[in-house]
Amino acid sequence: MPEFTATDCAHMAHALRLAERGLYSAHPNPMVGCVIVRDDEVVGEGWHKVAGEAHAEINALNAAGDKAGGATVYVTLEPCSHHGRTPPCCDALIRAGVGEVVIGLRDPNPEINGAGIEALAAAGIATRVGLMQHEVEKLVCGFLNRVTRQMPFVRLKMASSLDGCIAMSSGESQWITGAEARADVQRLRARSGAILTGIGTVLADDPSLTVRDASLRTAGRQPLRVVLDNDLRMPLSAEMLALPGKTLIYCTQDGRKSGLLDAGADVITIGRDNGQLDTTAVLRDLAGRGVNEVLVEAGPTLAGSLIAGDKIDELVIYQSPHIMGSETMGMFRTPTWTRLANRKSLDIIDMRRVGSDTRITARPAG
Amino acid sequence: MPEFTATDCAHMAHALRLAERGLYSAHPNPMVGCVIVRDDEVVGEGWHKVAGEAHAEINALNAAGDKAGGATVYVTLEPCSHHGRTPPCCDALIRAGVGEVVIGLRDPNPEINGAGIEALAAAGIATRVGLMQHEVEKLVCGFLNRVTRQMPFVRLKMASSLDGCIAMSSGESQWITGAEARADVQRLRARSGAILTGIGTVLADDPSLTVRDASLRTAGRQPLRVVLDNDLRMPLSAEMLALPGKTLIYCTQDGRKSGLLDAGADVITIGRDNGQLDTTAVLRDLAGRGVNEVLVEAGPTLAGSLIAGDKIDELVIYQSPHIMGSETMGMFRTPTWTRLANRKSLDIIDMRRVGSDTRITARPAG
Repeated sequence: MPEFTATDCAHMAHALRLAERGLYSAHPNPMVGCVIVRDDEVVGEGWHKVAGEAHAEINALNAAGDKAGGATVYVTLEPCSHHGRTPPCCDALIRAGVGEVVIGLRDPNPEINGAGIEALAAAGIATRVGLMQHEVEKLVCGFLNRVTRQMPFVRLKMASSLDGCIAMSSGESQWITGAEARADVQRLRARSGAILTGIGTVLADDPSLTVRDASLRTAGRQPLRVVLDNDLRMPLSAEMLALPGKTLIYCTQDGRKSGLLDAGADVITIGRDNGQLDTTAVLRDLAGRGVNEVLVEAGPTLAGSLIAGDKIDELVIYQSPHIMGSETMGMFRTPTWTRLANRKSLDIIDMRRVGSDTRITARPAG
Repeated sequence: MPEFTATDCAHMAHALRLAERGLYSAHPNPMVGCVIVRDDEVVGEGWHKVAGEAHAEINALNAAGDKAGGATVYVTLEPCSHHGRTPPCCDALIRAGVGEVVIGLRDPNPEINGAGIEALAAAGIATRVGLMQHEVEKLVCGFLNRVTRQMPFVRLKMASSLDGCIAMSSGESQWITGAEARADVQRLRARSGAILTGIGTVLADDPSLTVRDASLRTAGRQPLRVVLDNDLRMPLSAEMLALPGKTLIYCTQDGRKSGLLDAGADVITIGRDNGQLDTTAVLRDLAGRGVNEVLVEAGPTLAGSLIAGDKIDELVIYQSPHIMGSETMGMFRTPTWTRLANRKSLDIIDMRRVGSDTRITARPAG
């Protein structure tokens, strides 16, 4: 690990904050931020706003203009060296005559994976790599999952009472949590490439699964709506089929496919795993479609199956300050867990009040 | 409300911290702290350690000696003016020639209730009353409940997973929470005059319900162990019958009484309410026995019945970072709650990590 000063950290932290501005719009690309510093003065900053448009480095170089010559560039992720939808950032950095490039995380994307660093070195530009790498990894965890494991980062969101209930036995449930928690879910949706639910939830609640909060900078995009629907029971009248954005339905037999295609949905036939629709294959397929983060908003059957199958990377529970009692539905249906030893251990990584509810963020215990 | 300075607040806060030292030993008396200040110097401090021994004021006067003359006395609760197990504190304060008495809370105990303030005034000693009254009320909430409502403060403790489960359906449950949470429960027990459980829990778990943490200053006392046992099914071999401290059993028919009396238990026959043992009568009886705070450690049936009957003043949940799933027992059995509108709203008053668990303290929403 090269030497980094406190000033280096401050500039990289600045770049991280810039990167974060792309949270709701950069995907499937990673969020990237870039700061150009000359003589202790920030002469340019940029971030990646929307896939297909300019990368963070280009935006920062444009802002810096002539001042980029001999400057130090702080960029959260290794600059690209290949022609994607835009020309390579390394070429632009070399052309601008920057003095040094400080990189947060080496890009594990097989198309880059050190090639950017090599291109800079070949042009005689010094690099230091690994500053605040852990923080960058956290920010772009979905992108990293996709390019290194060909799987999206899977976040499961649940809303429950303090005693773990999500609905009455009758199904009555709206609303368990308050308006602030629901607004927070809008942010989880906006950062996700796809929202995944089960056909049971569609039939019971007819959810929209859209981002409706106009204050979120989504560049007008809606996450892909994904429904797991073994036997294609999806009604043609489902709310989500009429909304902006795309709906993708995974089934194991596609008898009713044509009506749904006419209604604008995509339908994919996928294999079974132990008699059930193969959720691993679904997630891998979504990664193949460029989905970095999946938000699961589902009932206890799908939620329980994903938890039991170790397919959840992060669990977000909005816990309302109520007791709902015994005539209720629990959060996870796990029919095979008959012993205490079957339980799953989690690490609580964040816990905070959201309105009058508590938001608990947890990950599988490491 | 009289005028209080920041210095007054600092001395009363000091007295409150002294009072708190009696948390595990003063009951059934209230915790009281006292600070005596002359010429900006603390010349004496005291607190009430054990019922039957000296009150806080006497301990502080003894520490101050001659310096109490003309001094200002800060005491969390109105000094007593009646002969209880010890002589009246007002007489001692008057004899010591103190200059002024600043009182946190007027004692609502019918035996005092302003009589102490009057006795001091009659002797020409100025008083100011109400400084940090709310904080004192919080500290002695159990005592206040008992003397004003003839009911104890009822605290219900539960241990659950993140998804609200307390055991597997098979009953398997040890341990849901970690060692730190169990150590924390020792503190809840030690501050309680009684620990209440149901016969179901005794038959299933044979709990001891004792304070075993020798570092807690309980003055050697054990809380009263209370079992609700309609039909006197309590086994003579129950662990708690052989332990230090008393066991009190409430039943509705006392056929098997004599064996339990021989085993050292007390047995009380109590009425029914809607066919069930009348828990309000039990709690009132416990208040009559000088119990300020009751800690309920029970299964979902008794816990659900107390929650549904609005008999809980405070709920303490130790929530472990696990998912236990659906083949489990929930926290509260509430067979009559069939609509979401039946749910109980709570105010979360504290939430913190205890080891790897989260302790949530909540009260019925005001």
